[in-house]
Amino acid sequence: MPTIVQKFGGTSVADPARIMRCAQRVMDARRQGHRVAVVVSAMGHTTDELIDLASKVSASPSPREMDMLMATGEQVSVALMAMALHSLGCDAVSLTGGQAGIDTDSAHRKARITAIDHARLERVLGAGAVPVVCGFQGVSPAGDVTTLGRGGSDTTAVALAAALDVGADGGACEIFTDVDGVYTADPRLVPNAAKLRSISYEEMLELASMGAAVMHPRAVLFGEKFGVPIHVRHSQKPDAGTLIVPEEHAMEDIVVVGCALKPDLGRVSLKGLPRADGIEAQIFEAIAAANVSVDDIVQTEFGDAATIAFTVEHGDIAEVKSICQDLVGRLGRGEIDLEVGLAKVSAVGTGMKSHSGVASRMFRALADAGIRIHNITTSEIKISCIVDRQHGEPGLQAVHAAFGLGDLGAGAPPRAAGTKARG
Amino acid sequence: MPTIVQKFGGTSVADPARIMRCAQRVMDARRQGHRVAVVVSAMGHTTDELIDLASKVSASPSPREMDMLMATGEQVSVALMAMALHSLGCDAVSLTGGQAGIDTDSAHRKARITAIDHARLERVLGAGAVPVVCGFQGVSPAGDVTTLGRGGSDTTAVALAAALDVGADGGACEIFTDVDGVYTADPRLVPNAAKLRSISYEEMLELASMGAAVMHPRAVLFGEKFGVPIHVRHSQKPDAGTLIVPEEHAMEDIVVVGCALKPDLGRVSLKGLPRADGIEAQIFEAIAAANVSVDDIVQTEFGDAATIAFTVEHGDIAEVKSICQDLVGRLGRGEIDLEVGLAKVSAVGTGMKSHSGVASRMFRALADAGIRIHNITTSEIKISCIVDRQHGEPGLQAVHAAFGLGDLGAGAPPRAAGTKARG
Repeated sequence: MPTIVQKFGGTSVADPARIMRCAQRVMDARRQGHRVAVVVSAMGHTTDELIDLASKVSASPSPREMDMLMATGEQVSVALMAMALHSLGCDAVSLTGGQAGIDTDSAHRKARITAIDHARLERVLGAGAVPVVCGFQGVSPAGDVTTLGRGGSDTTAVALAAALDVGADGGACEIFTDVDGVYTADPRLVPNAAKLRSISYEEMLELASMGAAVMHPRAVLFGEKFGVPIHVRHSQKPDAGTLIVPEEHAMEDIVVVGCALKPDLGRVSLKGLPRADGIEAQIFEAIAAANVSVDDIVQTEFGDAATIAFTVEHGDIAEVKSICQDLVGRLGRGEIDLEVGLAKVSAVGTGMKSHSGVASRMFRALADAGIRIHNITTSEIKISCIVDRQHGEPGLQAVHAAFGLGDLGAGAPPRAAGTKARG
Repeated sequence: MPTIVQKFGGTSVADPARIMRCAQRVMDARRQGHRVAVVVSAMGHTTDELIDLASKVSASPSPREMDMLMATGEQVSVALMAMALHSLGCDAVSLTGGQAGIDTDSAHRKARITAIDHARLERVLGAGAVPVVCGFQGVSPAGDVTTLGRGGSDTTAVALAAALDVGADGGACEIFTDVDGVYTADPRLVPNAAKLRSISYEEMLELASMGAAVMHPRAVLFGEKFGVPIHVRHSQKPDAGTLIVPEEHAMEDIVVVGCALKPDLGRVSLKGLPRADGIEAQIFEAIAAANVSVDDIVQTEFGDAATIAFTVEHGDIAEVKSICQDLVGRLGRGEIDLEVGLAKVSAVGTGMKSHSGVASRMFRALADAGIRIHNITTSEIKISCIVDRQHGEPGLQAVHAAFGLGDLGAGAPPRAAGTKARG
C-alpha cells in the first residue's frame, strides 16, 4: 500500500473551515488506497501573533524560549486536524515533533534534523490511523523543543517521507500550497508560461534560489539526498501539480525547463584591490554579517591588482557601499564602482549538460529582442545574463519563447502513484 | 535556602504587562533569598478560544486531542514568563509538564499525577535559574500530553512543592490569585468579614466545597497529603494572604474559622420508597449521570418504607424531578415532594472537635434572628442549617457575629518563611 505524506501550509489551515477541507484531502487519498501521514504548519497568522507577544516581554527573546513559544502554533494545528479527521470518521493521532521521533541538534530556531525514529509513526499507520505531525519542530538531545527555521515544515514532511521510505512503494510527499505547481516562468510576467508536470531536484533548486518561492531549497535538498518524490500541488484544487523527482526520471529531452527573473539588482565592483590572501573572505564576511545576500560573484586579476564584482538586491546597495568603503579604507587601496538598474534573466535545465548550443540560443534570443547583455554567469544547468532593468521582462519573455517553454504543459502524465488517480 | 513555588493563574498572566508584574514577584522572592520555581496557567481567555476552535471542527473532540490542544495555552505562558524573567536579568527555563517530570495516568482531560521526577527541576534550581513550569498538564505512560482537569494548575504547584519538599526548609507554595486570601465569610455578604492569617487543610476543604472558590479542593487535598504549606495571596498586592497549614499549626483556640452560604437550593424528598437493597445507588447514579451535584443527603425509614431527601442547586430541580419521576415509575411505589426557595448556612472549624456547645450557639444565633431551621446536617468540623432563601444572608451574618469572626483578622502573624518578609 503506497504511503503518502501530505503537508499543509499555514494558509491551507488558516481557519477551521479550511482545516476541514484539508481533512477531506486526506480522506480522498485514503479512499484511493494510500496510507497517509500528515504534516501541518501553524494556522495563518499565529506565528506573527506569537512573535508580537514575545516582543512585548523581551527585546531579544532567547532562542530556546522562542522555540518553546512558536512550537505551540503547530501543536494547535495538529490537534485540530486530528479532530477534523475524527469528525469524518477517520482514526487519527496528533504528534508533536518530539513525539514523532524527530531528533535535532541543539541549534534553537535553526535546528537541523539529526535522526528520525519512526517507530511511533509506523505504529499509528499500522493501526490504520493517520499520524498528524507538527511541522517545523523537533526535540534536542536535552529534551528541549527546537524549531527548524526557514522551510521547516516542508523539510519535516520530506524528512518523514524519507524515513517512511515512501519512494519504495510508489508513494510521494505531497506539498499542498497556494500555487498550482512549478511553472516554466512566473505566469504574471509570461502569460503563456506552462505548468511543469515534473522537474528534477537540481532544476528546482536553481529555480528556487532564483526566486520561484514554491518550495524552500532546504526541503528540496533533503528530497534529493533521500530520493523522495515531491509533489507540489494546490491545496484547494484537485489537479495534479508538479513532481520533483530524480534527474533520470525528469524530461531529459527537454533542454530548458524554466526561466526566471530577478528584476531589480545592483552591481558592485571593487577595482585595484591588493592581491592579498583572504581578501575575498574579508569582503564577503563583512557583507554576510549585515545579512545581505550576494548574487553572482566574478573575480579577475590584472598584475598585482584584483577586481571583484558581485550583484545584490537593489535595496541592499547603500549598505553594501558603506561596508565596501570601510574595507577599501582599511586596505589603503582600491576603488568602488556601482551600477544600479539591472536585472537578471536565467534559464535552467539539466538537459544543458548534454545539449550544446543552449547558451548561444539564449544570447541570440536576447540580441534579437534588442537587449544588451552586461554580464554572463553559468553553472552546469543554468545560464544567467545581467541586463538593464527595463529589459528584464522582455528578456524573460524572449528566452521563454526561444526554448518553446509555452508548449511544455502538454507533456507526459505525472509518474508517481500518489497523483495517478487525480491525473 | 528556602524554596518557594509560585503559581500564577490565568487572570494574573492575561497579557504581557501582567506577565511582567508576575516576573517582578519572582524577582522579589529571589531578592529575599529564596529559590523560586514558577507554575503558570494559560493566559486569560486562551482556554475559551481553544475550546471554541475545537468546537468548529468536531462536535465531540477526543479527550486526547483536546489535551494536545489545551496544553498549548500553558506552553505559551511559560515561554513568555521565562522571557520576561530574562528581561529582568534573571536566568529562567520554561518546561512543559512532561519536561518537568510530571507523570500522570492516561485519563485524558482529568489525569491524575502518579509521580514527579524532579531531577530536571533540581538541575535548573541548582544552576541558580528559575524553572517555569506549565500548570495543568503532564505526560502519560505512552508519552502523550495529558491535562489534569479542574484545579489542575493549583494541583501542579502543590505537587511540585511536595516533590521539592518546600516544607522542610521553611518554604511554601504560593498561590497568586485575584483575592486577598481566605475570609471568615464572603465580604460581599458580611461587611466585617476578616481575612484569616491561617486555616487548616480540613477547614479549607469544607469551605471550598461550600463555594468559597479560592482554591480547588483537589490541590488542598494534595497539600494536606504531603504537608505542603500553601499561601493564598493576591497577585497585584504585596500583603500576606492566608496560609493553609496542618491542623496542629492552625489557631486551635478558635472554634469556628469561617461561615459560608449556599444561597439558592431546592430539596427533593422521595417518600414511601420500597426498602430494596441498592435503591440509594439507583437514585444517585441516575442523578450523577445527568451531571447534577447533590448536596446533603438524609435518609430515614418507617417500617418497610424509606424516605430519602437531598438538596440540589435550584437550577437543577427540574432535571432532578424528571429523573425521580422515571425512577418512582419503575419502582412502582413512592411519591416525590419538592421544596424550593431554600438556602444553607454553614459554620466550619476544627475547634469543634474539642469544644462543645458549638451547635447550640449556632442554633441560638439563628433563633434570635427569627430564622426557622428546616434541616440540620453536621460533620466533624462543620454544622449546616437549611433555612428559607430570604433568611440566607441574615442567617450568615448572625452566625458570623455569634462566633466573633469579625475580630479574627488581628491574629498571630503568618508562620511560613515564604511570607515573613511581607508580613
